[in-house]
Formats: sequence, structure tokens, C-alpha cells
Amino acid sequence: MSVNATEHPALDVIQNRWSPYRFEPRVVEDEKILTCLEAARWAASSFNDQPWSWIIARRQDTVEFERMVGCLMEPNRGWAGHAGVLILTVTRNSFAYNKKPNRVALHDLGQAAAQLALQATALGLQVHQMAGVNLSLIRQEYGIPEGHEPQTGIAIGYPDSSDPVGELASELHRRETGPRQRRSLGEQVFGEKWGAQAEFVS
Amino acid sequence: MSVNATEHPALDVIQNRWSPYRFEPRVVEDEKILTCLEAARWAASSFNDQPWSWIIARRQDTVEFERMVGCLMEPNRGWAGHAGVLILTVTRNSFAYNKKPNRVALHDLGQAAAQLALQATALGLQVHQMAGVNLSLIRQEYGIPEGHEPQTGIAIGYPDSSDPVGELASELHRRETGPRQRRSLGEQVFGEKWGAQAEFVS
Repeated sequence: MSVNATEHPALDVIQNRWSPYRFEPRVVEDEKILTCLEAARWAASSFNDQPWSWIIARRQDTVEFERMVGCLMEPNRGWAGHAGVLILTVTRNSFAYNKKPNRVALHDLGQAAAQLALQATALGLQVHQMAGVNLSLIRQEYGIPEGHEPQTGIAIGYPDSSDPVGELASELHRRETGPRQRRSLGEQVFGEKWGAQAEFVS
Repeated sequence: MSVNATEHPALDVIQNRWSPYRFEPRVVEDEKILTCLEAARWAASSFNDQPWSWIIARRQDTVEFERMVGCLMEPNRGWAGHAGVLILTVTRNSFAYNKKPNRVALHDLGQAAAQLALQATALGLQVHQMAGVNLSLIRQEYGIPEGHEPQTGIAIGYPDSSDPVGELASELHRRETGPRQRRSLGEQVFGEKWGAQAEFVS
């Protein structure tokens, strides 16, 4: 899974990060979880507002873990239920320093989540993020206050590299072991106008 | 600037990333720019939609570079005008595969931007991102089509480590060389309820 056709050699942790659908049903060491959260903590954010927060459930805390699994959309519950850690992410809508709306809170959550995922990769873990979470249930279940928004789910764990068993497992295996594909730089890097390829991008 | 009190040791590129206000007014090598964009390209995104695009102006393309400086909010024009590269970021609002609204497009742009920034750090560059851009001017100036949204600006360059000159320079220097501060993990990692510190986070 670490092989992909990067046109220009990016950092190893970037090349080796992927989103597994199969995790070993195994506890993740607290020190590794804390290091992932620490990596997220140092992300850049507008006015250093750090508009993110994390609700976390570890696999070994079975009641809390199952409660969080129930807050995922149905198609995610099966595979994510094997992860070592689940996280629900929350943003604050307004800047702490002036109470004005923060247009980029979701963007900055994404930056923090990306750093978390790369740190996980460096520790031998992988992360699979989900937009498919039950936002209204999360708000109710975890008492998310006004001015804050539940946003995404994050599964962290040791990827399962064993042979898949059964039809569903095979399908997930196919999805996760297929080539990682991305649009070319030419399709996403523009120069004088949006849609006009930048000339130095070949 | 590489020193900060991380409680658990995160990746070097995460610890060494910062947001300078002073860049050397110096061209960035194309290969480095492309490697940063390549790092962004491999970010995770919901349904692998990769909803980001980048409009880019290099310092040496003076007319285009000045045009882009003019699309930043006034307080950013001075310092960002010294960068080697400017980028305006754009998201696509709807998934390519089914045309439905993508609730996390801005989040996924943030993930790509974070990977870009970490890659820049690894190459001896630094990035300073801006929410302060003129969104309506960018739309008009670069012909951003319906269904896409201009979002942020990114300045990339070699940080200027010389002694600052003048009052404004001193103020910027103070801002960029002060200790990097973040909320503690205890303030952002919750367990059974939002706001209730997770017990394993000390």
C-alpha cells in the first residue's frame, strides 16, 4: 500500500498514509493516541483559534466504544467497529477572541485531522476518516453545545493485512488495495485563470 | 522556531512548521513547488473527491504575482508580497460522482493544505495561510465558475531570519518569534460528554 506513483517525491508519511477498511480488532497504546492528538494540536489555524475538539472512545472502554459506533452512519459501523480508537470531531463556529463567525473552522479541523493521520502513519497505525456520521444524534448524545458543530468521525487502528474472508470482506479488501488514484496536478493547478493549467506544471 | 513544548513527540515536520510573517524575497525552485503540490494531491478526501484546486503565481512572474497580491486583504499584502509563491485555493461544492453537496469540501481542502505545508517545511520552506482574501474579487478576477468557491490564500517561501528593521517589521518579528502556543490536550479531548476531559488524557 506504500507504493504509489507520486510524480514528485513527497514525504514518506504522506506516501504511506492510506484509509483502511479493515483494522485488527486491537487496542491502541495510550501513548500513541496521545501522540496523534499532539500532532493535531500543533496544526495551523486562522488567528491560532484551534477551533477543533475531539470526543474519543477507546476499544477497551467497550460501552463507550459501542455508543460511539452507534453514532456512525450504518455503512461505517461494521468496519469502523474493528478500529482501536474512534473519535468524533467538533468545531467551534466563532473565533474565541472576538466571537465573530469563523469561516474556516471546518478547514482548520481538516488541517488538524491531516496531521493526526500522518502522525498515526508514522506510528504504524492508519486512520480512516468519515463524513458519514449521525450529526443530530451526536449533538444529542454527547451534549454538543450551541455554537459548536459535530463534523466527522475518525477511526484509528492497526490495519489488518490478513487475507479477507467472506464477500463483504472481499469487497472492502478490493477497495482498499486498489491503486491509490488522484487527479493529476495538471487538472488541479491553474495559472492566469481558473481552469487554465499553470505553464510550469507539466 | 523549531523548539516547542510538545507533550508527546510529534513528527519533526509538525514540530518545525510555523507561519512566518517575513519571507526572503526570493524565487522558490519549481521542483519544490511541484513537490508541495504533490504532497497536497495525496491528501485524504471524502469519497476521494479531491475537491480542491489551486491558482498559483510565482514571484518571478511579476505581473501575475502582483495581480494575486491585490486579491489578498490589505493587511496581508505587505508581508505576503515577499513570498516566493502565492496560491489561491478553490473548492468544488458538490461531489464529482453524484453532484450532491459535499459538506466537507472545506475540511478536505484543509487536509490538502496541511500536507502542502508540512512538505514545504521538509524542503526548508515555510507556509503562511490566509483566510483574509478578497473572495468576490478572486471570483471575478480568475473566473471561478459556479459550483466552485474561492477559499483561502497560501504564501510559500524561505523564511527571513535576519534582524527585523523598522517598527512594522519588529511587530511582525515579535508575532512570529513568540512561543508557539496551543490549548492543552485536556482542553480539547473529551470522553463521555463534550467538555468532560477524557480520563486517559492527563
